[in-house]
Amino acid sequence: MAEVIKVGLLGLGTVGGGTVNVTQRNAAEIARRTGKSIQVVTAAVRDVTADRICDTDSLDLTEDALSVVNNPEIDIIVELMGGTDLAFDLVMHAIENGKHVVTANKALIALRGNNIVKAAEEANVMVAFEAAVAGGISIIKALREGFSGNQIRLIAGIINGTGNYILTAMGDEHRDFSDVLAEAQALGYAEADPSFDVDGIDAAHKLTIMASLSFGMPLCFDRVFTQGIRDISLTDIQMADEFGYRIKHMGIARRTDAGVELRVHPTLVAKEHLLANVNGVMNAVYVDADAAGPSLLYGAGAGAEPTASSIVADLVDVARRMDSSVAYVPTLGFQADQVEDLVIVASAAFKSAYFLRMEVTDQPGVLADISSIFANLEVSIEAVTQKEPPRGADTASISLITQLTDEAKVITAISKLESLSQVAGAVHLIRVEQF
Amino acid sequence: MAEVIKVGLLGLGTVGGGTVNVTQRNAAEIARRTGKSIQVVTAAVRDVTADRICDTDSLDLTEDALSVVNNPEIDIIVELMGGTDLAFDLVMHAIENGKHVVTANKALIALRGNNIVKAAEEANVMVAFEAAVAGGISIIKALREGFSGNQIRLIAGIINGTGNYILTAMGDEHRDFSDVLAEAQALGYAEADPSFDVDGIDAAHKLTIMASLSFGMPLCFDRVFTQGIRDISLTDIQMADEFGYRIKHMGIARRTDAGVELRVHPTLVAKEHLLANVNGVMNAVYVDADAAGPSLLYGAGAGAEPTASSIVADLVDVARRMDSSVAYVPTLGFQADQVEDLVIVASAAFKSAYFLRMEVTDQPGVLADISSIFANLEVSIEAVTQKEPPRGADTASISLITQLTDEAKVITAISKLESLSQVAGAVHLIRVEQF
Repeated sequence: MAEVIKVGLLGLGTVGGGTVNVTQRNAAEIARRTGKSIQVVTAAVRDVTADRICDTDSLDLTEDALSVVNNPEIDIIVELMGGTDLAFDLVMHAIENGKHVVTANKALIALRGNNIVKAAEEANVMVAFEAAVAGGISIIKALREGFSGNQIRLIAGIINGTGNYILTAMGDEHRDFSDVLAEAQALGYAEADPSFDVDGIDAAHKLTIMASLSFGMPLCFDRVFTQGIRDISLTDIQMADEFGYRIKHMGIARRTDAGVELRVHPTLVAKEHLLANVNGVMNAVYVDADAAGPSLLYGAGAGAEPTASSIVADLVDVARRMDSSVAYVPTLGFQADQVEDLVIVASAAFKSAYFLRMEVTDQPGVLADISSIFANLEVSIEAVTQKEPPRGADTASISLITQLTDEAKVITAISKLESLSQVAGAVHLIRVEQF
Repeated sequence: MAEVIKVGLLGLGTVGGGTVNVTQRNAAEIARRTGKSIQVVTAAVRDVTADRICDTDSLDLTEDALSVVNNPEIDIIVELMGGTDLAFDLVMHAIENGKHVVTANKALIALRGNNIVKAAEEANVMVAFEAAVAGGISIIKALREGFSGNQIRLIAGIINGTGNYILTAMGDEHRDFSDVLAEAQALGYAEADPSFDVDGIDAAHKLTIMASLSFGMPLCFDRVFTQGIRDISLTDIQMADEFGYRIKHMGIARRTDAGVELRVHPTLVAKEHLLANVNGVMNAVYVDADAAGPSLLYGAGAGAEPTASSIVADLVDVARRMDSSVAYVPTLGFQADQVEDLVIVASAAFKSAYFLRMEVTDQPGVLADISSIFANLEVSIEAVTQKEPPRGADTASISLITQLTDEAKVITAISKLESLSQVAGAVHLIRVEQF
């Protein structure tokens, strides 16, 4: 009879239900891999009478989350409530009670992870969060363990399925952002309040976690430069396509001589790059490391079962290691006393190529005026396209791509462009990255 | 002062030199991640006077491999000699001496791994072989740990860089197999005797290992259906292209109701699939698992530094866990007493779609005769193309793709086709897979 590891869930919605289903369906496989039987025995829920996607016959359901965290029979707490206040209190309480913690809560780790990691270290328990980044992809394990012999130089991820679904559909079906967003909301791919996804906050949470694991730095969500995709128009996507690029919403963490760049923004990626071919709700993380070279991990970014796959992988990890009082993989990949503050590079110091689009009154000489602004700033233009105004319109659209340059110069160029009398309205900027 | 973990290498060629370079260059990063200092202190070589790609000042070089394995100061042996006889004896000797073993030797694990795993279990030491499959990609860790909550249904890998380089160059540059092979040999991508790579033996070694980890079965290299790429012609690649496919040399392990299919063969993959876009010497492994869904891991398949990346990841894993007397990840992903024999499906029972190409004398009615053979066997044709004979030639080329069917039926169809008077020579078969 295999030893039983007892698991208590905080939350039994989509991911919690998926976790119960996977542990029950694959119980034999998990026991064969682990040498132990991993059983979800209790779950704290908001309403014990609500409908569930899983069988709850073998579970004690309770509306008292604290009773789960305090239950002496429970070995591992799986936190799936979301939020950063009550979830934080309960996780800290579980750690104080000597319980290991598995969580899918990216906001919790990104915003309050430093305290949680410290508490876990002191209590000698494990805190695992594979499910917090990129759903079913084992990117946390890859960064903490697979790349452990490397200096990681770059992480570039498509790590928000909703945003990628919207951008993919806009490009494939020639539709506008708001139109596709409404459809995504109707299909349940996007929340009623979509700002977490489309404004890049969710991606910034995930990037924060990956950057900490990659570079051995504290979690610093508030230092991430974050830009959403609401301003991406169908015209941008079509012009990018003509230049040979697709637009992806990416989280990028790059180690440079100046420190670390942490940024979430729409990004032009060359069509032939694997990242440009990650479509719909799929996620992918591109890693460039000094020994391994370029790598890509691709998979489902969300959903009950893929997220449960990562939660159960964490449960197996904890179960395999919990008899050991020493030497497990450190929570942030680096030993607790080796996590170092690093300089976060300001956005004005980013280096990139830039796609700029502007509306111009169709006067002779406008292209010359625009070109001279860039020339005076010593910014080279890689390609430029002027679209004739549609019948009846009085402005034409000019799109251009710069060569690699300093963001500060481009910001200056934009302010000079916007002061030209022939340029109507704001100049639209999207970064171009070559990975 | 961090604890020092002392490593002895068996072999100091490309991969050994790369391992020394990576452990030295990234010593600080590795110590920050591990809490220990991992140092290569000795290496057994064939000729101590030979040139090396690494600095050997801090290493004891010896031509006596047994002295390394017997050295009581050494904690971990890294076996990089290749071969399955002397390497096996030395690895078994190291295990008996209580040393942990890391190896990049896929043949050793695929052919003699069952004995090694058993010995390691009895001696309570770790045997790790991340570098044996797909170079810098952490596929072993993903299968043993990342997918541990899943029933893995399918592994489909481009796991031989030489073969993929040749097929990519044939397609991109419209060149013949022998021409590209000669160039690959000149560039050092292919060995003087290329059979390990182009006949699929190397891929079968790697598939054997992945299948064991995925399904919890013993290593059974001699049960892998193995076909090479020598027979792939430029015409095949061009006809496949017209049908919307690329040809890749793949290793496929699939769990079916009948058992496990283990096969290495050229495979048509739809152009829009990520696997079809893995080019040159790059490797990728596609995994379909019941909870995680479809995933892809992509990266460098060979080379000193990517392979060293995986070796050092194993060294870090061992170093992180070696203080613990219990509960590390089992060598084959499943607990030793849970590894089960599974039925290996015979190739006649494979189900697939099939690309067939044949030369025909250009007589009226030939297409009708061919079609009726398939119709009588109840095999549906998805697409067919007849190419007019080039000026002066007296045969035309007919290519077709069947729908999904039993391999046994296709074998019967081929023998009937070859007995038609209008069909000249052998019918050429390549499997078509949809992942």
